[in-house]
Amino acid sequence: MAVGLSDNPQLLPVGGLMLSACFAGIYKKKRLDLALLACDGGAATAAVFTRNAFCAAPVIVAKNHLHKTRPLYFLINAGNANAGMGNKGIADARLLCRRLSLLAGCKEAEVLPFSTGVIGEPLPVERITNALPRLLSALSAARWPDVARAIMTTDTVAKGISRKIRIKNREVTITGIVKGSGMIKPDMATMLAFIATDAVVGRAILQRVLKEAVEQSFNRISVDGDTSTNDACILIATGKAGSAVIESIRGPAARTFRNAVTEVCVYLAQAIVRDGEGATKFVTLEINRGRSKAECTKVANAIAHSPLVKTALFASDPNWGRIIAAIGRAGIDRLEIKNIRVFINDVCLFEDGRRARAYSESAGRAAFSRPEITIRVDLGRGRTNCQYWTCDLSDDYVSINAEYRT
Amino acid sequence: MAVGLSDNPQLLPVGGLMLSACFAGIYKKKRLDLALLACDGGAATAAVFTRNAFCAAPVIVAKNHLHKTRPLYFLINAGNANAGMGNKGIADARLLCRRLSLLAGCKEAEVLPFSTGVIGEPLPVERITNALPRLLSALSAARWPDVARAIMTTDTVAKGISRKIRIKNREVTITGIVKGSGMIKPDMATMLAFIATDAVVGRAILQRVLKEAVEQSFNRISVDGDTSTNDACILIATGKAGSAVIESIRGPAARTFRNAVTEVCVYLAQAIVRDGEGATKFVTLEINRGRSKAECTKVANAIAHSPLVKTALFASDPNWGRIIAAIGRAGIDRLEIKNIRVFINDVCLFEDGRRARAYSESAGRAAFSRPEITIRVDLGRGRTNCQYWTCDLSDDYVSINAEYRT
Repeated sequence: MAVGLSDNPQLLPVGGLMLSACFAGIYKKKRLDLALLACDGGAATAAVFTRNAFCAAPVIVAKNHLHKTRPLYFLINAGNANAGMGNKGIADARLLCRRLSLLAGCKEAEVLPFSTGVIGEPLPVERITNALPRLLSALSAARWPDVARAIMTTDTVAKGISRKIRIKNREVTITGIVKGSGMIKPDMATMLAFIATDAVVGRAILQRVLKEAVEQSFNRISVDGDTSTNDACILIATGKAGSAVIESIRGPAARTFRNAVTEVCVYLAQAIVRDGEGATKFVTLEINRGRSKAECTKVANAIAHSPLVKTALFASDPNWGRIIAAIGRAGIDRLEIKNIRVFINDVCLFEDGRRARAYSESAGRAAFSRPEITIRVDLGRGRTNCQYWTCDLSDDYVSINAEYRT
Repeated sequence: MAVGLSDNPQLLPVGGLMLSACFAGIYKKKRLDLALLACDGGAATAAVFTRNAFCAAPVIVAKNHLHKTRPLYFLINAGNANAGMGNKGIADARLLCRRLSLLAGCKEAEVLPFSTGVIGEPLPVERITNALPRLLSALSAARWPDVARAIMTTDTVAKGISRKIRIKNREVTITGIVKGSGMIKPDMATMLAFIATDAVVGRAILQRVLKEAVEQSFNRISVDGDTSTNDACILIATGKAGSAVIESIRGPAARTFRNAVTEVCVYLAQAIVRDGEGATKFVTLEINRGRSKAECTKVANAIAHSPLVKTALFASDPNWGRIIAAIGRAGIDRLEIKNIRVFINDVCLFEDGRRARAYSESAGRAAFSRPEITIRVDLGRGRTNCQYWTCDLSDDYVSINAEYRT
């Protein structure tokens, strides 16, 4: 179902980052459901976590461990979120870190746990523990595709991307993978993203680069407006690409690096939307000429979260009145309808407070029938623009989520 | 499909209020699609309108006319919202008021227009005009049920209620009807409500009574989080019940009247949710022990607007993790998970930051399987409570809205 995505992303190894995945039996059906990333003590890690007040246990533990030391291992399971489990959830997440640390010969705090899947079921700790030796012995730089597959839940395709850039005449690789399909909203929705690079970057700069990239990517997507308890985006810089050092947030090398990380994040964020639960359309929202970023985002959010706009998109029905109604309820102060123009791809639907004179229903329908659609709203009141990505709402979304636990 | 609603509301005449409905040909299919309410110059009218920045033309005209004088006629059409039509929409709405005023022998501003239906199509002014003489000649106090039917769009049942109360030893009737099914959210969603009483109430007091009632009813419901351009709630006091005079907002007579109007509004608001597009479950949200009304409402909104909670309700799947995740993203400052308890009907699902010990999946499933469900969230941090009503999200919601214009 994913709109314009293949199931077979070409992922390049990143020097200094080893990976592994296996079937631990968290899912009943045989599939990869446990993954491990490993780096050495020279690597720096940046992280952004969910803003949901109900953090899942692994998020609490991961934040706590990151605060204490540099992580060496990232243990990720699908099929169970280890969320809503109270103190037992925390104890379970810690126990897994401890057991892995004993096998790997590191400190407990050097392991970060991540979980995704159903909320409110106890984590099958023994099954995961039993799989840890297999995971450790199978670590390899080439296993990005397996890990991309192991972290999937309702995702229909494995999602990832690699970019090569040159920094100070040295080739640098950035590879990222992501899972996420439903419960998608700004502020870190139900998604896990792991991005690694061999560039040499200190933790403080890396954190700024990641935060900036997330702001322009994962914080600009919506599938259904729900956010989850388990979201995280991790950026690891292994530092193995010798001279490719980013010493500052500014300058040409930093710019190249920041742009590339943002590009990777934007690709991964869009991939989540393209693989949105039940999605048949990929929609880019361009909100132009607003007075502020905040007001452009409000308009984008109102359109992206409107079930009526989303069902119209699914039906290829250019029911632009629903777009207008969504803009109208976005909560923009003193919005002047007369100044607003709305376009679908290059077709102007709405201007001067009414349907555009040149607009025809057949042109609208043709535009809405494409799998990739741009809705452009010109607010005509300022100089700020923003982009945002969303998808349609199909009957498959309802079936997928009604049958999620059956 | 409507949950616990019959299609045949028992509606009592209100002295001084005459009604009429006919098929004007706005819909292709033969059905009542045009309605008229009429009162005399002794009646007072209160009104609450949509807060959507894109007001439809009839809303703009109705507000303007209300500002000028007391209305005598209320002309309502279904099948076309007369919204997103720019100046032509305004001109069309005014033209209809003028034509009716010429036939009825009143001023143009004494007619208020209301429209509901598809946005962005020109109003069929001639067809409506042709039907006006028939409407005027058929006015009768007994035609509430026909009007309830004429204002329906995607509604599956005609919705209305009557209450009899005693004020100062005089019997007073309150009868109200409503349309609304999709695009439902606080701040006046796609709904039209017309309520009339024969009590004697001045306009200023009537407006306060209506505002208070709307706050506790129509502003506490959600089907899909969308709001429309055309919403209005009208309360007419014809003053025909002689001695039943409400002179002040306080005192026992006022209290009886306010409570009854609020009861009628709550019934009508709940009826919208019960008849929500595709709804199979009627859900009462009780948010208790919050620090403020605002924070209780935030939590209710987050749950009511979560597609994941709503699809779980549709599936009778007690996936309470989704409720927890929705509470967590409601944006409540310093929410303490440990203090929160969540109940479905009388079953405690969640306490001490985890699934309740006594909870069993089968008890949860039994509770979720009923057509009427109460979700109670005890925030454990204050003394404020609020109630809110919503419904589930079924595949029928998607089909209804995907096929709305086909």
